Amino acid sequence: MRIIKSVPQLRKALAAFRRQGRRIGFVPTMGYFHAGHLQLMRQAKKAHEVCVVSLYVNPTQFAPTEDLAKYPRDFKRDSSMARKENVDILFMPTDNDIYPKGYLTYVDVKSITEGLCGHFRPRHFRGVATVVAKLLNMVSPDVMYLGQKDAQQVAVLKAMVRDLNFATTIKVVATVREPDGLAMSSRNSYLSPQERHEAVVVYKALIMAKQGIKQGERSAKRLIALMEKMITQQSSGKVQYIACVNANTLEPVTKLSGEVLLALAVYMGKTRLIDNLTVRV
Amino acid sequence: MRIIKSVPQLRKALAAFRRQGRRIGFVPTMGYFHAGHLQLMRQAKKAHEVCVVSLYVNPTQFAPTEDLAKYPRDFKRDSSMARKENVDILFMPTDNDIYPKGYLTYVDVKSITEGLCGHFRPRHFRGVATVVAKLLNMVSPDVMYLGQKDAQQVAVLKAMVRDLNFATTIKVVATVREPDGLAMSSRNSYLSPQERHEAVVVYKALIMAKQGIKQGERSAKRLIALMEKMITQQSSGKVQYIACVNANTLEPVTKLSGEVLLALAVYMGKTRLIDNLTVRV
Repeated sequence: MRIIKSVPQLRKALAAFRRQGRRIGFVPTMGYFHAGHLQLMRQAKKAHEVCVVSLYVNPTQFAPTEDLAKYPRDFKRDSSMARKENVDILFMPTDNDIYPKGYLTYVDVKSITEGLCGHFRPRHFRGVATVVAKLLNMVSPDVMYLGQKDAQQVAVLKAMVRDLNFATTIKVVATVREPDGLAMSSRNSYLSPQERHEAVVVYKALIMAKQGIKQGERSAKRLIALMEKMITQQSSGKVQYIACVNANTLEPVTKLSGEVLLALAVYMGKTRLIDNLTVRV
Repeated sequence: MRIIKSVPQLRKALAAFRRQGRRIGFVPTMGYFHAGHLQLMRQAKKAHEVCVVSLYVNPTQFAPTEDLAKYPRDFKRDSSMARKENVDILFMPTDNDIYPKGYLTYVDVKSITEGLCGHFRPRHFRGVATVVAKLLNMVSPDVMYLGQKDAQQVAVLKAMVRDLNFATTIKVVATVREPDGLAMSSRNSYLSPQERHEAVVVYKALIMAKQGIKQGERSAKRLIALMEKMITQQSSGKVQYIACVNANTLEPVTKLSGEVLLALAVYMGKTRLIDNLTVRV
């Protein structure tokens, strides 16, 4: 595995792989790897692609009030984990490479960035879209692998890749979960043992809602109320939002039909957890 | 010359050229070709590049009050002119290819889009940056050719290409002028004979300012006043703006030094003309 820190070096290494006719699989990350990240890397290797992983904690997707400074970082552990997955290139640019002095350009995806997490993190998806547009232009991958845990991020990046005509296919990989169901997240490391214990309720609420739908419930309002009640009764978690939306447009639905995304964000103490399930009604 | 209308066909044709190891030169246009456009095409051919010309009247760079509907179009004449320049591919996408139903993504370049033309055409450069980002992802050119006549457009696209890490070099080609000095523009076709006759004052004012600078004038305010006076006295033109700005940041200067861009927009009747000169002080 090569650890590459500069864009010209990256382009050179990739050009060599391309001359061999090899396809490039790309996994953009903010590091502090967990089983979810490793699953994305394995998908690229399974497809016999050159696996390029970027590790960059992107400041433009954090609000000033958010956890940029304390976001967990452990480059030594990350590079060791990536090496074990036979990653070909671990790309670790600096802030100065990504946002040099005089930086001016941002990519905005409208409409689907306004609800769900975007409502509470107004500049977040602009930062995500911008950094991923840059990384796509640096790596020019054939395939980009994204985790379903960040469902709105997936929708935003799918729209951006489609709208700006990037020659990259997006593959979405199912959320990897802890044995009790909690979605893998770098932010789980913030949880106290008690919070970690209670955090399973986030997934349990989704599963309960899915069962409710199977049993015929079609009212988004009632499902959301049930999920909220479960979370409030079974944990100290504070719900930021619970939503039933059209899985493609991310627009709220009142009566469930078609592909529906159940998504929520819950604060366990100071830690914000998100999770989601897609249900075909 | 191949006339190509679909993105997959374009990608296929370009892949074939790339397999031959040929470099791609790209000229984005809105058609209604004049000698300025032809000069851009010739630069690509001179560099032995595959010359790809896009012809697309981009609706997102026109305000609702502007001249989108009546923008001059003559595809037959354009394709004949491009053929004579040995253009390899003339790419003519439809609105539905570029902005299909559900389109959501825009590229915004901050700061340098706010002054000059951007002040009077608030969404214009967002439209330009967006469509050129799309075209760059479709064509992946080695070099993109732009005319100096649209100086702010050049600055915006240079910033976008740098910031979003497009693997494309921008070459800027000097403004081509009519024998009397009027900058070539598709919009010159709007001018009445009398307006056309008077329009030369736009360039004359720039030349006078340049001579003033040569003779030691360093006050932007005085230069702008002189230019405005000349235009008002020698024509029926209405000045929209006259500016002296730093040629790189496009920020207004009061005392001229370094590379200075003199830029202006003047209405001759209903036709808006722009022109500029760069002066090293």
